[in-house]
Amino acid sequence: MEWEAIEKRLNTLLENGRHGELRGAMMMLNEVDIAQYMETLDRDKLLLVFRILPKDISADVFSYMSNEQKQTLIESIGDNEIRSLIDDMFLDDAVDFLEELPAGVVKRVLQNADPEKRNLINQFLRYPENSAGSLMTIEYLEFRGEDTVRQAMDIIRREGLDKETIYTLYIIDEGRHLIGTLPLRKMILASEDTVLSNIMDRNPVSVHTTDDQEKVAELVRHYDLYAIPVVDKEDRLVGIITADDIMDVIEEETTEDFEKMAALTPSDDEYLKTPVFKLALNRIPWLLLMAVIAIFTGMIITSYEDVLSASGSVGIILTACIPMLMDTGGNCGSQSSTLIIRGLSLGQITLKDFFKALWKEFRVAILVGTVLFAFTFFRVHFINGADWGVSFVVGAALFCTIALAKALGCAMPMLAKKLGLDPALMASPMITTIVDMSSLFIYFTIAKAVLKI
Amino acid sequence: MEWEAIEKRLNTLLENGRHGELRGAMMMLNEVDIAQYMETLDRDKLLLVFRILPKDISADVFSYMSNEQKQTLIESIGDNEIRSLIDDMFLDDAVDFLEELPAGVVKRVLQNADPEKRNLINQFLRYPENSAGSLMTIEYLEFRGEDTVRQAMDIIRREGLDKETIYTLYIIDEGRHLIGTLPLRKMILASEDTVLSNIMDRNPVSVHTTDDQEKVAELVRHYDLYAIPVVDKEDRLVGIITADDIMDVIEEETTEDFEKMAALTPSDDEYLKTPVFKLALNRIPWLLLMAVIAIFTGMIITSYEDVLSASGSVGIILTACIPMLMDTGGNCGSQSSTLIIRGLSLGQITLKDFFKALWKEFRVAILVGTVLFAFTFFRVHFINGADWGVSFVVGAALFCTIALAKALGCAMPMLAKKLGLDPALMASPMITTIVDMSSLFIYFTIAKAVLKI
Repeated sequence: MEWEAIEKRLNTLLENGRHGELRGAMMMLNEVDIAQYMETLDRDKLLLVFRILPKDISADVFSYMSNEQKQTLIESIGDNEIRSLIDDMFLDDAVDFLEELPAGVVKRVLQNADPEKRNLINQFLRYPENSAGSLMTIEYLEFRGEDTVRQAMDIIRREGLDKETIYTLYIIDEGRHLIGTLPLRKMILASEDTVLSNIMDRNPVSVHTTDDQEKVAELVRHYDLYAIPVVDKEDRLVGIITADDIMDVIEEETTEDFEKMAALTPSDDEYLKTPVFKLALNRIPWLLLMAVIAIFTGMIITSYEDVLSASGSVGIILTACIPMLMDTGGNCGSQSSTLIIRGLSLGQITLKDFFKALWKEFRVAILVGTVLFAFTFFRVHFINGADWGVSFVVGAALFCTIALAKALGCAMPMLAKKLGLDPALMASPMITTIVDMSSLFIYFTIAKAVLKI
Repeated sequence: MEWEAIEKRLNTLLENGRHGELRGAMMMLNEVDIAQYMETLDRDKLLLVFRILPKDISADVFSYMSNEQKQTLIESIGDNEIRSLIDDMFLDDAVDFLEELPAGVVKRVLQNADPEKRNLINQFLRYPENSAGSLMTIEYLEFRGEDTVRQAMDIIRREGLDKETIYTLYIIDEGRHLIGTLPLRKMILASEDTVLSNIMDRNPVSVHTTDDQEKVAELVRHYDLYAIPVVDKEDRLVGIITADDIMDVIEEETTEDFEKMAALTPSDDEYLKTPVFKLALNRIPWLLLMAVIAIFTGMIITSYEDVLSASGSVGIILTACIPMLMDTGGNCGSQSSTLIIRGLSLGQITLKDFFKALWKEFRVAILVGTVLFAFTFFRVHFINGADWGVSFVVGAALFCTIALAKALGCAMPMLAKKLGLDPALMASPMITTIVDMSSLFIYFTIAKAVLKI
């Protein structure tokens, strides 16, 4: 059945007050879909549908709702309902949700959580945003190396229901240090008397609570992990981060790269849900910064006034070629910087490859520059009717601009990384602005020299 | 221990011919790391280290090696070794690897696979590239609804070792149609006599063999899945796709978006491993296309020669402001198009939101345009010494350019999607080129009207 038909059917049941049937219909849906349906409801209907939901899935559905709807709901329900909701949520989901709420609402939620949960949540809220600590959950199962497979299975059966993942077992020593991990699959296939320490993987990949989420994502991607353990300063196991949360992090980091590369202040909000004023605010500072730099580009033009007002049609042809020169320079720079930025963020290029990449871009620039020189040289002569000298000036300036754009597009993201800045800041808009300035300077210098203006 | 120290130690062992110790050292490492180490070796050393590797992990290590090294190794080892390697590999890894090999090498590999595996591989190679069929693996476990938990556990213990994932059980009817899925976790926690059909999820999300990988990634992301079942035209279960492969797909699709948005022909190859000639070839057609469009921009300048050669300093100031106008227009367009393209690819914006998004961009453009108008109006007057009329022309043209750039940046990716093209093609370079042309036209029209040139 199409989603729109499902939505319509649910709405009909809701409007006709057929709550039993509505609950039955929702039980046939995935929690993600129910949450999506609840996005469309106003405050009263939202509350009604939430109360109709079977209790055992309401916390799950809540986790998948948008922060706006979560907040609306929290403001509508009673203290008891808040308590049971928070108690049923996985800790990491609860923390994620609280991080986005206004302080007043957070306080009300925390007052209603049971004391143990409240302490844990408070502790988690203290980890820096985007750190491994703020992403992790404590719903995992830990074992001792001397436990047997039989004992472990008993523990899983007894405690597994509340745990976010039981597919990896974490094995610790007396000091709570992580000494190994064991995929559930490997344990199931072992005989019941096997001791865990004999079959566990002894070199588990782990992260520290203070590590940045970018590092966590990198490790998970590199090692194809389903979950990664988190340890504290003393290497004691304190939590795990699961793959679904990591996929969200990767998505978030990628969106941030896209935004920075387009000269936007990164934002966690979905486009359609971001207020117009905030969208404008994310854009204006960068545009102003680049408009200021462009003043210098203008100054270069002013100081070469003599070239542009050269006699006959020379001046106007030279002026007419400025947009093509600037656009091509910008495009060449953005091609190179995009490849370098993406390579850096996927770990395929490191700072050690600086000269290797630069040498590669240099050779690419020669090839690209030659083709575009030829195209432009003949185009300016035959189509714009310029003499061979002017055509050569435009072509040669284009060639030099391409070489410069490729070199800057390659070098600047890597230099940014070297300086501890995000390479994504050195993408198309910034490179274009800098290349424009330099390309005009090259252009006029060549024109003066060749045409003796 | 740092990776460089590990690498050095392994090299020392290798050079001194201490093969037993080298094998021991490698057994302490993750397969991904061993594969990474093997990337650094030449043909002879690669072959030696591969033969030293413990047999039970060599197929895994092989899966993580780059295609270049895989090919080098396949060309060096004997037929028997190829056979045991291919037999030990998961089917989807084997298929992925064969898809990248030259035909001659594929033939040799297939000749050496056992007949059953060969048939399967051949069948998989026939699925279109990037389809769900080409991504899936057949290493999953299937059950009947009437099986009990006890029977299912026996099957897992007996057959689980060869299966890529045992964490989801797939339940089929007599006609092999997928009727439900069951997380292993749920089964372990159920009593031994429970019948699977009583605890399975009856509405499993699935894809068809011919669905595009982008759709697969979307569903996995939307429903936070660890694996997704694949069915054929008759809805019979034929395979599954696991989360690690999906993460690779998402990464690949994102890289493709980045490349298209920078006017590059997308490529599967890592930057440092792509030949210079191919890098150039991925860039030249787009640069030529945009250089051709820029000819028209030049024509606009030529046809407004009178404006640019206006008396006094007016002409030169108007010329000097062209780069700022073009850059700001391009940047504004790329800000909008990036947000729209990313929103479309994450499913946060759909074509139904067209007018909503356009209305949003329109209001953002008013805010951004007003700030930049004010900045430019005063800057041109006080810094460049132009009179108020000229300052107004530049500011007003900038305002209109911003509005146009935001509108095009919003509308063009969505129109591209509507036409079945990839929205990423309508990113910064293309938008910039089009905005440049229009902004100069606006600029000169306003100048002529206001300054009466």
